[in-house]
Amino acid sequence: LSIGLPPGKDPHMSRESDFLALLREQARHPAARGLLDDAAVLEVNGTTLVLTHDIIVEDVHFLAIDPPEDVAWKLVAVNLSDLAAKGARPLGALLGFGLRYDEPWERAFVDGLGRALSSFGMALLGGDTVTLPRDTPRVLGLTAIGTATGKVPSRADARAGDLLWLSGTVGDAHAGLRIAKREREGAEQLVERYRLPRPRLEAGERLAPLVRAMTDVSDGLLLDAYRMANASGTCAVIDLEAVPMSQAYLDFAGDDRGSRISATTAGDDYELLFTTPKAREAEVLQLADELGLPLSRIGRIEKGKSVKLFDRGEALALPTRLGFEHE
Amino acid sequence: LSIGLPPGKDPHMSRESDFLALLREQARHPAARGLLDDAAVLEVNGTTLVLTHDIIVEDVHFLAIDPPEDVAWKLVAVNLSDLAAKGARPLGALLGFGLRYDEPWERAFVDGLGRALSSFGMALLGGDTVTLPRDTPRVLGLTAIGTATGKVPSRADARAGDLLWLSGTVGDAHAGLRIAKREREGAEQLVERYRLPRPRLEAGERLAPLVRAMTDVSDGLLLDAYRMANASGTCAVIDLEAVPMSQAYLDFAGDDRGSRISATTAGDDYELLFTTPKAREAEVLQLADELGLPLSRIGRIEKGKSVKLFDRGEALALPTRLGFEHE
Repeated sequence: LSIGLPPGKDPHMSRESDFLALLREQARHPAARGLLDDAAVLEVNGTTLVLTHDIIVEDVHFLAIDPPEDVAWKLVAVNLSDLAAKGARPLGALLGFGLRYDEPWERAFVDGLGRALSSFGMALLGGDTVTLPRDTPRVLGLTAIGTATGKVPSRADARAGDLLWLSGTVGDAHAGLRIAKREREGAEQLVERYRLPRPRLEAGERLAPLVRAMTDVSDGLLLDAYRMANASGTCAVIDLEAVPMSQAYLDFAGDDRGSRISATTAGDDYELLFTTPKAREAEVLQLADELGLPLSRIGRIEKGKSVKLFDRGEALALPTRLGFEHE
Repeated sequence: LSIGLPPGKDPHMSRESDFLALLREQARHPAARGLLDDAAVLEVNGTTLVLTHDIIVEDVHFLAIDPPEDVAWKLVAVNLSDLAAKGARPLGALLGFGLRYDEPWERAFVDGLGRALSSFGMALLGGDTVTLPRDTPRVLGLTAIGTATGKVPSRADARAGDLLWLSGTVGDAHAGLRIAKREREGAEQLVERYRLPRPRLEAGERLAPLVRAMTDVSDGLLLDAYRMANASGTCAVIDLEAVPMSQAYLDFAGDDRGSRISATTAGDDYELLFTTPKAREAEVLQLADELGLPLSRIGRIEKGKSVKLFDRGEALALPTRLGFEHE
């Protein structure tokens, strides 16, 4: 997830990828899943633990003007989105908090944190607080721990012939960010999608037994599809006309091909991207009904690599950047 | 743990305490232990998980001139010291890394991290990497997870009549810090105690069934004893002449009362402080023999509150600051 820099202009991208490559050499335990998945999956005495740690930085992942309660919500939600993608049920969290000198902000943040955790049935287990110099951005980390039962879906298990699915809609949160930054006017519901993302926990838990591969869409649909394809040694084929976008998004950005492509490279959606065998189609649609959450077929998995994008059968060139390359 | 500011001069102290008090209101689950213990203790399907998260900040908890391999070691060790105090066996860790623009530093850090984790039998499970602005200090977080069997000792269980014990020696690391900062010349072994602390994992695991209360000494013996006494509703009575200090420390700081008191308020020792019933004395001394690690009776627990310090029977005034008040 990232807000500070538009795709194609991010000097940090390759640095973080390089660092991740270094770390990967030290992460040989199977629980780490090669640092290629949304979360670690650790078996302990027959219990499957799912663990994730995400950091958000002021002016990179959230805005200094965002309400502190919403920043707390977002910190929780981005971590839970990783658990959702593994079909895990959250248990608790540890907070890593870089303090500055702003007590009202901190008080509101802690209130929001408590509300977010309790709304997801999570316990605040512990953590650490450090004081940062006055002029540094806020740095907030959270470790979330959950449990899963049965097979825990990986990003790396997509197979040629699978259907490719997406929950909800994409593009809303990035539009909301632009509205929050007062770049443009637009619907408040888009701002809410940016500030208060809803991790798809119930959907993830119920989808886990049905899917082959699953990941969350946090950095852009095309980028997360690319990562899934890459990890699986397959190609993700996406039909742009099948990618769902909200009416609010289309009203904001325009209902044309350019705005639809933008939505597929926007960040902060926190939806689920998953593949299933063709035979599971009816079950997925049934589940969508039960959840009251759109689960849309947006394409398929083929032999090959990377991502291919079509619009009503016409092959499109991929955008230069597929999303926000922050793991 | 904290290096940047001497005791008595730390403006962050009360801020972090205030923030912790706010957080405590949100941490009502018993696994959080009221945020008053070294780590969270979470029961999951009959397995006892012990979880901790510590952050270290450049120029606060480590020096910019410290070798990056040693910074990685320290990040792992400070977290494992919390697990040691709960008698837990480490399983794995998640890293939260604030990148800057210094590839050689990062490469050496990751090498050191790999070596530290494998020397403790831990897996690198995952984590997150963010890029910080160029002029901000490095911020490094680690979440460590371990398992415990049997009763997990708390800070809060000391009882009047207990013996008070300390592993190893105190004062070395803070002396080593002063040498590393080139304030004074001194023995390299003191610098090593500062840069490469050894968490007392085996001792912690073997002491857990014997102790009433246990905590690690990271912020100063007097301060950690005060916290234990406070959490337990008792008074910790410490005999200064019984507190063990290394010959290297006494050579560096002088063998007088002032230097001995300094050692009891110095940080970064990562020793274990624990209490036992009187009847356990022989077992503890036997264990010290088996481990080849001094376990010294440094006082006792009495009714009352706070800490009392004696030197050969003479009551001493407590220093203004008992240690480094960073949780």
